[in-house]
Amino acid sequence: MSSTIKGFDTAKNNDRLAVLIPGLGAVGTTLIAGVMAARKGLARPIGSLTQYAPIDDSENSPRVCDALPVAALDDLVFGGWDIFEENCYQAAREAGVLTESDLAPIREELEAIEPMSAVFDPAYVRNIDGPNVKEAPTKMGLAEQLIDDIETFQNDHGCDRAVAVWCGSTEAHVTMRPVHMDLEAFEQGLRDSDEAISPTMIYAYAHLKAGVPFINGAPNSAVDCPALVELSQQEGVPIAGKDFKTGQTLLKTVLAPGLAARLLGVSGWYSTNILGNRDGAVLDDPDSFKTKEESKLSVLHSSLDAPRHPELYKDLTHKVRIDYYPPRGDNKEGWDNIDIFGWMDYPMQIKINFLCRDSILAAPVALDLALLGDLAHRMGESGVMDWLSFYFKSPQVTEGEQPIHDLFMQRDLLFSKLRSWYLASTEAEPAAQLAAGAE
Amino acid sequence: MSSTIKGFDTAKNNDRLAVLIPGLGAVGTTLIAGVMAARKGLARPIGSLTQYAPIDDSENSPRVCDALPVAALDDLVFGGWDIFEENCYQAAREAGVLTESDLAPIREELEAIEPMSAVFDPAYVRNIDGPNVKEAPTKMGLAEQLIDDIETFQNDHGCDRAVAVWCGSTEAHVTMRPVHMDLEAFEQGLRDSDEAISPTMIYAYAHLKAGVPFINGAPNSAVDCPALVELSQQEGVPIAGKDFKTGQTLLKTVLAPGLAARLLGVSGWYSTNILGNRDGAVLDDPDSFKTKEESKLSVLHSSLDAPRHPELYKDLTHKVRIDYYPPRGDNKEGWDNIDIFGWMDYPMQIKINFLCRDSILAAPVALDLALLGDLAHRMGESGVMDWLSFYFKSPQVTEGEQPIHDLFMQRDLLFSKLRSWYLASTEAEPAAQLAAGAE
Amino acid sequence: MSSTIKGFDTAKNNDRLAVLIPGLGAVGTTLIAGVMAARKGLARPIGSLTQYAPIDDSENSPRVCDALPVAALDDLVFGGWDIFEENCYQAAREAGVLTESDLAPIREELEAIEPMSAVFDPAYVRNIDGPNVKEAPTKMGLAEQLIDDIETFQNDHGCDRAVAVWCGSTEAHVTMRPVHMDLEAFEQGLRDSDEAISPTMIYAYAHLKAGVPFINGAPNSAVDCPALVELSQQEGVPIAGKDFKTGQTLLKTVLAPGLAARLLGVSGWYSTNILGNRDGAVLDDPDSFKTKEESKLSVLHSSLDAPRHPELYKDLTHKVRIDYYPPRGDNKEGWDNIDIFGWMDYPMQIKINFLCRDSILAAPVALDLALLGDLAHRMGESGVMDWLSFYFKSPQVTEGEQPIHDLFMQRDLLFSKLRSWYLASTEAEPAAQLAAGAE
Amino acid sequence: MSSTIKGFDTAKNNDRLAVLIPGLGAVGTTLIAGVMAARKGLARPIGSLTQYAPIDDSENSPRVCDALPVAALDDLVFGGWDIFEENCYQAAREAGVLTESDLAPIREELEAIEPMSAVFDPAYVRNIDGPNVKEAPTKMGLAEQLIDDIETFQNDHGCDRAVAVWCGSTEAHVTMRPVHMDLEAFEQGLRDSDEAISPTMIYAYAHLKAGVPFINGAPNSAVDCPALVELSQQEGVPIAGKDFKTGQTLLKTVLAPGLAARLLGVSGWYSTNILGNRDGAVLDDPDSFKTKEESKLSVLHSSLDAPRHPELYKDLTHKVRIDYYPPRGDNKEGWDNIDIFGWMDYPMQIKINFLCRDSILAAPVALDLALLGDLAHRMGESGVMDWLSFYFKSPQVTEGEQPIHDLFMQRDLLFSKLRSWYLASTEAEPAAQLAAGAE
Repeated sequence: MSSTIKGFDTAKNNDRLAVLIPGLGAVGTTLIAGVMAARKGLARPIGSLTQYAPIDDSENSPRVCDALPVAALDDLVFGGWDIFEENCYQAAREAGVLTESDLAPIREELEAIEPMSAVFDPAYVRNIDGPNVKEAPTKMGLAEQLIDDIETFQNDHGCDRAVAVWCGSTEAHVTMRPVHMDLEAFEQGLRDSDEAISPTMIYAYAHLKAGVPFINGAPNSAVDCPALVELSQQEGVPIAGKDFKTGQTLLKTVLAPGLAARLLGVSGWYSTNILGNRDGAVLDDPDSFKTKEESKLSVLHSSLDAPRHPELYKDLTHKVRIDYYPPRGDNKEGWDNIDIFGWMDYPMQIKINFLCRDSILAAPVALDLALLGDLAHRMGESGVMDWLSFYFKSPQVTEGEQPIHDLFMQRDLLFSKLRSWYLASTEAEPAAQLAAGAE
Repeated sequence: MSSTIKGFDTAKNNDRLAVLIPGLGAVGTTLIAGVMAARKGLARPIGSLTQYAPIDDSENSPRVCDALPVAALDDLVFGGWDIFEENCYQAAREAGVLTESDLAPIREELEAIEPMSAVFDPAYVRNIDGPNVKEAPTKMGLAEQLIDDIETFQNDHGCDRAVAVWCGSTEAHVTMRPVHMDLEAFEQGLRDSDEAISPTMIYAYAHLKAGVPFINGAPNSAVDCPALVELSQQEGVPIAGKDFKTGQTLLKTVLAPGLAARLLGVSGWYSTNILGNRDGAVLDDPDSFKTKEESKLSVLHSSLDAPRHPELYKDLTHKVRIDYYPPRGDNKEGWDNIDIFGWMDYPMQIKINFLCRDSILAAPVALDLALLGDLAHRMGESGVMDWLSFYFKSPQVTEGEQPIHDLFMQRDLLFSKLRSWYLASTEAEPAAQLAAGAE
Repeated sequence: MSSTIKGFDTAKNNDRLAVLIPGLGAVGTTLIAGVMAARKGLARPIGSLTQYAPIDDSENSPRVCDALPVAALDDLVFGGWDIFEENCYQAAREAGVLTESDLAPIREELEAIEPMSAVFDPAYVRNIDGPNVKEAPTKMGLAEQLIDDIETFQNDHGCDRAVAVWCGSTEAHVTMRPVHMDLEAFEQGLRDSDEAISPTMIYAYAHLKAGVPFINGAPNSAVDCPALVELSQQEGVPIAGKDFKTGQTLLKTVLAPGLAARLLGVSGWYSTNILGNRDGAVLDDPDSFKTKEESKLSVLHSSLDAPRHPELYKDLTHKVRIDYYPPRGDNKEGWDNIDIFGWMDYPMQIKINFLCRDSILAAPVALDLALLGDLAHRMGESGVMDWLSFYFKSPQVTEGEQPIHDLFMQRDLLFSKLRSWYLASTEAEPAAQLAAGAE
Repeated sequence: MSSTIKGFDTAKNNDRLAVLIPGLGAVGTTLIAGVMAARKGLARPIGSLTQYAPIDDSENSPRVCDALPVAALDDLVFGGWDIFEENCYQAAREAGVLTESDLAPIREELEAIEPMSAVFDPAYVRNIDGPNVKEAPTKMGLAEQLIDDIETFQNDHGCDRAVAVWCGSTEAHVTMRPVHMDLEAFEQGLRDSDEAISPTMIYAYAHLKAGVPFINGAPNSAVDCPALVELSQQEGVPIAGKDFKTGQTLLKTVLAPGLAARLLGVSGWYSTNILGNRDGAVLDDPDSFKTKEESKLSVLHSSLDAPRHPELYKDLTHKVRIDYYPPRGDNKEGWDNIDIFGWMDYPMQIKINFLCRDSILAAPVALDLALLGDLAHRMGESGVMDWLSFYFKSPQVTEGEQPIHDLFMQRDLLFSKLRSWYLASTEAEPAAQLAAGAE
């Protein structure tokens, strides 16, 4: 890849990129295993827009990863933290997402990744506990240990850059308080071990202080508080979140715009999920569920716009349920019932049963976010990356902006950004030449 | 409504518009009854974009029907043809779509609409037959009777304009032959009663000759042959088709783009439908089913673009099944099973069960098409209206163009046209003023 | 009907039977309206075994209602209690189960049934409240008022017999305490207004004291405590319960025996329900839900017999969820996911979506129970009617017995009782003659 | 196992039993692999009634295989015929039912089973063809080759007894003609190569002539013609059929009796199936489908008894559809929509989605039938085994009898037979002793 984007230092194209993952569970290990397998030509990273989507609609359009200087899969170095001591091979087997025959050829590589000890607080995550946990007198002390970890990891593995993707558990709901409102208060809170500062926030703080972009794949409050937005801008690093948009919610943000496009009314949307992985166990705690529920409930508002269309959407009942159901393992299943109405208010029903695999859907999202978060960083972006909304259930947006949930509008936003970079690059170097260079 | 679109004769705004419907069955009578009820304030024409959609995203955007000089519901005069002699009240009761309590307040108005005798050919529609049928020595003779009907209807009801919306049965599949290839051959074919000219084509010919826009709501070949496209251009009238996009296919063209947006692979899409109305009985004939099947199978191609993404879509098995199942009446039900794959090719499944009501979904589509077909006519458009693709399963497009099936791209195309007219109008008269005037 | 069952006083066949219903809501009014409509020949009491099932498998077997001296529909006189003051016509409209056109012809009859004031305690039912409520210094005082109501009703309406069917709300869960353990303690508890005595128990006590059989259609603790079993035996009246087996549970007790018959393993059974009627609102309270959940969870045990088949059923995860979802009204909908396994432990899944109508399924059950409860009373039975298990989610059985949930075994039990009476009757009078007499 | 059933020669208990399988495809290889794995303690033969069901309801009831002298899994020797030359390991991999990790430990044993060359006629099975096919001047010649095969196999493998289970493809529908009506005509037909004699019939004839019980797992006409019934009686061998009751039909024969038990009406039952294995390819041929459809349509008649309950079942529309859908492989999936009605004729709907595995459900059925067919033979039974109806979609019954489809009645019939043998044995030897002996 030899494109030159204005102001972009292509010399760094072949640098090694540390992909740091707090929470080396089902999603994290599936991501890592998939990239390892893809590097060996044993698997395809299906679902990844950077790897598969053309940058534009032209007939011979290059793919995003060829059109823009995103880090190559070969250049990724994975690391992370977890409360369990199992290495990534053990954790992947435990997670039960990938078959043994898919794990076998990359076993050694996976075994080599051992989790660093985690920041953990049982007040925030109730239904699991583990031994591989940091201790420090204050939350600031924990943050400093993480910063050390980040630097040590980069040095040990010869990485010049890093990006973090939170793949840990859903935490109990955090109400915004003064401690979250500005950076000074937040840092004082860390020193005081303020109970309103969650582990995710500590990770986020540490990464931003270390100059590492932070992506939040869980519904936890993290970089979506004023203090950490301030820090991201101050340190010049991109942040994005929150909550990977995977199964049921993905379909919701596809279907809702479709119903709205046809001006069909919606009187109710009932969604239930069954899942049996560790995520399910965590969400069985009402406080963690509340965090998730809030994230999942938000997605219909912007698509089914009640203020604009009270006749169609004002009486919408939206319910979301998640049930821990061990027989299913990671194979999360959603069932939605949607009550719609049309001509003369006659009712109709749509039912959607999605037999999905949570981590299979999340892994390419995590990959894209790592690659695009890093790319944005190198392009000089900092603060909230609204244009990454495409990947999130509950997109964090710049203050004053409204989140967009419609998947197609989100995609337009994403590609508008990517194409602006691409166009900038191809002004200097025509597309045909670039595509040729990519081969 | 007082907007002035450049070159548009607003004096004609309050003219009465004849809406002529070949096939006064479930869809036609539901459309008519709904408009009648809406005029009395007894029902809402939910699902109609002209009546409910804002013309743009601005906060106080007027609705399409207020932003543009579309005919008012109060100015519509309904008429049509059918092989059965029942008036529209009887036909609506027979169709079983609307409840008796919804039909009661408009009974007299409905009873007043008696179908004109129809052009019918049992070779094209096998499983039904009726007594109210025209006879003539040649197909040209039938066309001439229809032209008479059209003129007489307009005179009798004081209409200055007309628009036709085919709501009749699905016909046996027609293979394109020389007779369809130019207008001269087609007219000779009418005089020779060529067996390759179907009743729908005769209706289409008659309306175009009478200067009336023709919209094709069925999958039948009609205005989508070179001969009739030629005629539509010659006569300066818009044409559009084909096959109203209602239940299962509507969802397909929403969901397929969503899967494609996330670069998820699709290995199979199985769709079955059960329906028990007259439509179902007709489609129980293999030749009629073939026509429908072809229309329904086409919709995935442009969204799941195999040539561009062979790794995702080249092995897609797409099956469509329609079964006549009397217990369900007009309440068509679809069940789709979609086999998708993601990261590392792991398979997942989506199942959609749509308990829809065929005519309830089709009626607002038919309304919009009548209003927009007429509007286009007054705006001086003629020939194929590609921008109406939004409403069709199998959009007819200008020769050399590729049909678009993605509902969201179709919507962009539609609104791009509508907004261009709106912008033209508001250059003379600013939007704010227009909105005020609309109240 | 002229059969003579030994020891049965056929002179009472044409007596009027008071059917007393605590809780004149959706189920109660649907039952009453249906019987009224059936008496006029306007509707069919489908789902009622007494009205439709043959007593045996012989070719010309008479139906249960013709083979045995069950009260005729014409002889039923309905009454009841409710916390709302609406008469049965108003309540039926409010319930939204039956269409207006079905209610119109029986409107006057329904309007004539006005609820007696109810015994109500907001500690037991939290999410609703109403004005039509009795007051008394003690719970015994309330019971005495009910006994008065029962006697007054029978006198006013010329009824010689009565039977009660509880159709009221699900109450908060009651833990068994000493006060429930014998009649003396219970009566002292009534005098002391012991908080552990629920309204349903007060109704049950009152009916038994009045010599009226009591059927419990809700999952509430009522006659299933030793004190009231003792009373039922002492007063010589039948009791039965609890919780009408209607939608999802009905299917469970059909399907589970089927899986067991084929020795298929079951690793999980997830059941969710959405309903929007008053029942749904009540069950939105966790305490009421707990009562219902316990009832719904019990049904798999006897069919999927883990002690006998640990290899098939010992790790079964069984979850039941009920969600209040107003868009659906009384049209309760269940979705079940059942994870099964077969040969070599390979997993399979069954999903069942039941679009049922709660009251439509409950009404014939309530009718049968009223008729069979009364019949049993006349046959000299008293105490717990195990043989009525067929109709209940959580069958109350004689102390020391195990409840049976398998619908087919329950049916065998029921018919074994009915046929024993029938055989007794036909020993005196041969079946052929009896059938003739029934015409 | 040492029980002594009167007149039963227990000395033969440890004989080796040849299980001969015409059609070594998905079902056959799954059966064989499962038995091999079970013998090694690597898998469990779940779904097999002989292996798991207790003979009666007593607390310490022995299992059927311990209560009766059924052949032990260790004593089974598998062989068969197929039109493809692949050995059983290759065929099992091709079938794609079992994972590679399940096949690996038994690979050698499976490889040792090579199919004998098959009798095949493309007029009867159109969509597949293979090279491993017998040739002979007449159909009688083919039968004689099969008889040789059977004898050779038994000699080569030291088997004293054999039983045959047809696991081959569904053939085109055969209309009964004079040639099928008596044995003499049939044998003349074999000599004349009468086109009305199908391959399955030739296999059946050969086995019966060789004194081997013949079980028909497909819907093909085979032993269900008078000629072959006559032969089975003459040769003193049991026969049974037809069409293994596995997925959708299994559930139908569970659910239909459940609805009937509650006297609920059924207006429609729509069943569709998608499957992608070789079976699916064969059934894509309309003539083969017709054979299957007839078998699948028959199952509701006896449960939903329209003559007895015209008010509930006389207008039932029953549709069955099977679609070949390659993405799904052997993982057949059924979707049923059942339209029911209850109190006052109000309609409700049940939808069942069964993600089953055809061969996983069929294998234990085939095992039980082999074991019970052999047991019956040793018990001196011959002719049609009505009591094996439990296992079949379309049970073959003794002339003059009506087939029973209700799964629970079928089970009663089956156990009534098994228990009669068990009781006969325990008269001599008490149950307690027997159970002890079984350990």
